[in-house]
Amino acid sequence: MPRSGAEARRRLQQAALELYREQGFDQTTTAEIAARAGLNERTYFRHFPDKREVLFDSEADLREALTQAVAEASDGLQPLEILRHACRKAARILEANRPFSEPRQEVIAATPALRERELAKAASLTAALAQALRQRGVADRLAVLAAEAGWAAFHRAAGDWLAGSAQSLDDCVQQAFDDLRALSATAGPQR
Amino acid sequence: MPRSGAEARRRLQQAALELYREQGFDQTTTAEIAARAGLNERTYFRHFPDKREVLFDSEADLREALTQAVAEASDGLQPLEILRHACRKAARILEANRPFSEPRQEVIAATPALRERELAKAASLTAALAQALRQRGVADRLAVLAAEAGWAAFHRAAGDWLAGSAQSLDDCVQQAFDDLRALSATAGPQR
Repeated sequence: MPRSGAEARRRLQQAALELYREQGFDQTTTAEIAARAGLNERTYFRHFPDKREVLFDSEADLREALTQAVAEASDGLQPLEILRHACRKAARILEANRPFSEPRQEVIAATPALRERELAKAASLTAALAQALRQRGVADRLAVLAAEAGWAAFHRAAGDWLAGSAQSLDDCVQQAFDDLRALSATAGPQR
Repeated sequence: MPRSGAEARRRLQQAALELYREQGFDQTTTAEIAARAGLNERTYFRHFPDKREVLFDSEADLREALTQAVAEASDGLQPLEILRHACRKAARILEANRPFSEPRQEVIAATPALRERELAKAASLTAALAQALRQRGVADRLAVLAAEAGWAAFHRAAGDWLAGSAQSLDDCVQQAFDDLRALSATAGPQR
């Protein structure tokens, strides 16, 4: 048996990812995941409430890192620059998880039930980011827009990086936020 | 019996919305929806594949209106201005549906299963918008970001308008796109 809860979680995640890739998400049971991890099913449910959540364990860390970095960003930054700073800091979590993240992303893209969960996580994460921006005094109507645009940039950066871009994740984040700014900044007035 | 398929769809949507509000989504069956609409359950499933889809019937029209307006926008516009134009055009669909849209949005916000479906629809719609931008020659990496930011603006505008803003929907759309531009445009260089 693994010595710690963290080790059990790690083994369950690895086992789930392997089985989802080998035989598909729908065909895999929690009992099989637990068995592959050398654990029993009760232990599985002590750590994860369902078959989907096991692939989203790092979301809580990511949310914590992002919202804390928003809170700690320098004064005087515009909302998107606060988010750029936060995404660069949080990128370290993705980098640490890369061997897991690549196959994970493939499984999610191929599995509607996991894609749905991913979208729900993204919505909850952008709501948390918007709230962190509001707590810094960003106006409510700007906070939500900024959080959604910033998350879109971070998501694209992670995708570019995982897709085998030769760039570092940090470069991908910088490029995505530069693109986001360029999208708006170069548009002349239309009204 | 209603004379046309369109009339049957409309009655099923209205019946579903009423029942979801009165007794909750989880407690409502497709048989009850059909009965309330004066139809049988087989007719329900001829029009909608499940209990969720009945509230998302206008998404296809919205997608069609948005992507067509992207294709037809003037030359020389930046991506976000193309999307501003498209959202202003598509706003007419929302305006025509307002008596249905307000209670619908309340039910969706209160029902996780419907919220999940709404997020999936939004993801599919932004993918279609990105594709429409690409077909106009917008670079792939800008197209996805622009579509997600533009959709965030449109979604906020619709929310402001439904929440009882004194403004017209068109004013809400303009304000949201102005805010989106201001988010980026006023940020000084950070690198």
